This record gives sequence, C-alpha cells and structure tokens, in this order.
Amino acid sequence: MALPAPQPCIILVRPQLVENIGAVARAMLNCGLTELRLVAPRDGWPIASAAQAAPPHAPMPDCIAERLFAAASGADMVLRQAQVFPDLPTALADLHFIYATSARDHAMVKPWSTPRTAMPMVQQRLQQAARVGILFGPERTGLTHEDMTYANEAICIPTNPAFSSLNLAQAVLVLGYEWHHTLDAPPKPRALPSRPCTQGELHGLFNRLEHELDTAGFFTTPELRPTLVRNLRHALQRAQLTDQEVRTWHGVVTALAEGPKRRKVQP
Amino acid sequence: MALPAPQPCIILVRPQLVENIGAVARAMLNCGLTELRLVAPRDGWPIASAAQAAPPHAPMPDCIAERLFAAASGADMVLRQAQVFPDLPTALADLHFIYATSARDHAMVKPWSTPRTAMPMVQQRLQQAARVGILFGPERTGLTHEDMTYANEAICIPTNPAFSSLNLAQAVLVLGYEWHHTLDAPPKPRALPSRPCTQGELHGLFNRLEHELDTAGFFTTPELRPTLVRNLRHALQRAQLTDQEVRTWHGVVTALAEGPKRRKVQP
Repeated sequence: MALPAPQPCIILVRPQLVENIGAVARAMLNCGLTELRLVAPRDGWPIASAAQAAPPHAPMPDCIAERLFAAASGADMVLRQAQVFPDLPTALADLHFIYATSARDHAMVKPWSTPRTAMPMVQQRLQQAARVGILFGPERTGLTHEDMTYANEAICIPTNPAFSSLNLAQAVLVLGYEWHHTLDAPPKPRALPSRPCTQGELHGLFNRLEHELDTAGFFTTPELRPTLVRNLRHALQRAQLTDQEVRTWHGVVTALAEGPKRRKVQP
Repeated sequence: MALPAPQPCIILVRPQLVENIGAVARAMLNCGLTELRLVAPRDGWPIASAAQAAPPHAPMPDCIAERLFAAASGADMVLRQAQVFPDLPTALADLHFIYATSARDHAMVKPWSTPRTAMPMVQQRLQQAARVGILFGPERTGLTHEDMTYANEAICIPTNPAFSSLNLAQAVLVLGYEWHHTLDAPPKPRALPSRPCTQGELHGLFNRLEHELDTAGFFTTPELRPTLVRNLRHALQRAQLTDQEVRTWHGVVTALAEGPKRRKVQP
C-alpha cells in the first residue's frame, strides 16, 4: 500500500473510550492517514512503540484492548504505530503547526476556519516540509482553554447548532475526508461494461420505435405526434444508453411489436 | 429548533447493528437531518411511529433498544420519527429521486458522483419540490446488485483504496456533512415543466414492461432474465422520467404490445 506522504498527524487529547480510539484508527485509515498520537489515554495503552523505549503509560488490560482492536475493524497498523505521550507539550514538541478542533467558542483571539478551508492550508504546510498536528479533545468536554493555547489555529466543523456535538471518530473522519480531498486525485473514471452508444445508433432506435408506434396506431391525434415524439426522444437521450442497451431496446420493441405469435411458430 | 426544510431522507437497507443505527441518528441530527427510514432492520424496531398504525416489523427487545438509544447520544427524535418498511420498493414508493451509496463497482451503467458533487444536485432537486432518498446498504455487504436498480444515481465516497470500507454512520455523516454545506448557498431552482415521477410510478412501469415482455416471449434464455431486467431498469432510472412521461411510456408499451389489431376494430 503506497500512501501519499507527508500527512498531518491526528492527536487525541486524553481520550476516554477505547471504542472511540479504535473507530478513529479506522476513520484515519479510510482517509489514508496513519500517524496517531495519544495524550494520556484514560485506560492506558497496550503497545510499546519502537520509538518509545520507556512508554509513559499504564498497560491496558487485555479485555479492554480487545474492544480497542474490534472497533478498529482491521486498521491495526494505525494502532500499532501510535505514539503515547504523558502531556500535550511533549506530544507536540517536534511539530511545526498545530490546529485545534473545537465546537466551542473559547473567547480567544485565534484564526477560526472550517475543515474545508483549513485542509488546503494544511496540505500547503506539508508541502513546505512542515509537520502538522490536529488536536481533538476528550469526548465529554472537548479541549480546555489551556489546551487551546498550544494551537496556532482553530477549526470548527459546521454542524446543526441545536445538536452540534460530534462523536470523536466522526470529527476525525470529517477532517480526514477533507484532507483526502486535497490529494487532488480526481475520482478515477470507472470502466464501463460497454461503450456509450453513438447518436447514430440512438437515432436508429428512435426511427425503429416511431415506425412501430405508427404501425400500431399509437399516434391517434396527428397534430400531437411531433410533441409526443420529442418527449420520447428526450427520455431516451437522458438515459445515456450504451451500444449493448440500444440493442436490448431494439429487442424490446421487436418483442412487443411482434408479440407472442411469432414465438409460437418457433419450435 | 428551526431546521431548514426540505431535506433528503436517509434510508438504511437491512441494517444489522443497533449501535450503528443509533450512531446514524446522531450523525444525521449533527447535520440537521431528521428523516430516517429503515428497511427490514435485523433486530426489529421498538417504536410504532404515528404514521404506521400496523408497523411491519418485529418488536425490538428492550435490552437491544437500550443500546440503540445509547448510541444515539440524545438524537432520540430521529429514532422516534423513523419509519420502518418491509422491503425497498415500499420504502421508496413516494420518493422521486434515489441516490445509492456504494464503494463497489457494480459494473452497471449509472452516473457516479462523489458526495461533494452530488449534494448540490440533491439540494437543487429539493428546491424543485422533489423528495430525495439516499440509500445505505447493510454493514457487511453493502447494497446488492438488485438494490442498485432502485437508484437513479450512485454516490461513491472517496477513500483510501487500500482500506475503503467506512463504518455505516461514518458514511451517513459524510453525506450529511456535504448536504449541510449546501445550506450556505442553495442553488437557484429552475421550474420544471412537469413533476418528476415517484419511484412507485416508475416501478409500475417496470412491472408493466416486464409483464408484456414475458408475454411476448422476449426472455428466451431464462437465466439471462435477471440481468436483462436489471439493465432495462437501470436505463429507465437514468432517464429520470416525469409523471407525464411515465404515462406516455405506458402508452408506448400498450401500443406496441397490442399492435395494430386493436386499432383496426375501431371505427
């Protein structure tokens, strides 16, 4: 798996529920993000990362670790590479730019942006070889006023003002999703099962259908014929048929026009 | 709480885990969405909504309902207003436009878009007084090939190709988030010459056409019938017919099926 580098790292500050941490790992990997940092996770941590000879955390009981990995749904590599820190300044020391996510107004003087406007800036910083971290606060309270002082900028996810509190993994997903959009890989065109029909093929179908309708006496009011024909053609144009489908629809017209009689005479 | 109306409805097809349904309700309300429909939820449903005097579902055991509401984190109103349906066609009958979310390539000919490009179109449809539904498949398998035939368009959420499977509530959140973004600048509606057909009207056309094709002996190879029927339905979904056009196409099928014989006996 070749992931695009560089990327921002996701920093969970004092996360509480391991289910949320696992779901964060899954959401990150969905968006191609793999760098996770944890600041003082409530239930400790099961894995001593290679970068941390003396991991600054309590061991996580096995029964809790099981719930952690179950919630990650296969994004284990994000969890195994995660780094754990005892406090926020330590977790941020080697990074250059810090964004804090918050739903609350911290009455502070700091630039606010949305994920959509912030992520292109994050991408630009990364291209300039800066290391970027994005902070997410604990589930119940979010980041404190003091946590916010460690950030250069704040990001607010636009939500329903009457019900604004996002789940932790949902908030991470929105940021990751917007970051993934900055990768600027236009969606790959999907291979079609068959090629689009040419207009000539479509006109052939028009003519066949209209001929059969004339034969069947469909156009009972001659002055309405042009309007009806136009409407039928518009609908078929909108359908954007493939060449295979044009053949199928020819078959449909033939089958309906000839009815069961023709079939009966066949063996 | 004054929510902007109208809005798309979120349709969970055969959802399995109540934790996910609860998380969907929370994610919806975060984005200001409140219209939830459930098609054959695995564990039944606890609430008989006012709109459904005889709810078509098994009762959900209390111990499971507790997990459902816990996962919703206060978005109870979305759950209490949810409507439950026994199958997909019934759930869609009164809607006009259906979008299906899928990570898989269904090898079908149907327009594909991303949430970012699709949601402004959804908003435009809503401004034209159309009712829009967005389908989400079961957790393990996603939507089936047959489910996809009930949609006009498909939406693919751009994710890491090496780890693309989003949690159900995460997928709903991305769509809701993009929809919420369209609230900032709703595109100007353009008046339509006639209203879009409902899915129920379209299903009626499907049934009529397929019945006549059966009568006419169109499906000479029985094992190919499902594929052919799917292709015909996909083409008609793409055409996004109006109610007037559905009536016209009924007339087309009737005229072709009955042929000139019937007309000849008329004076």
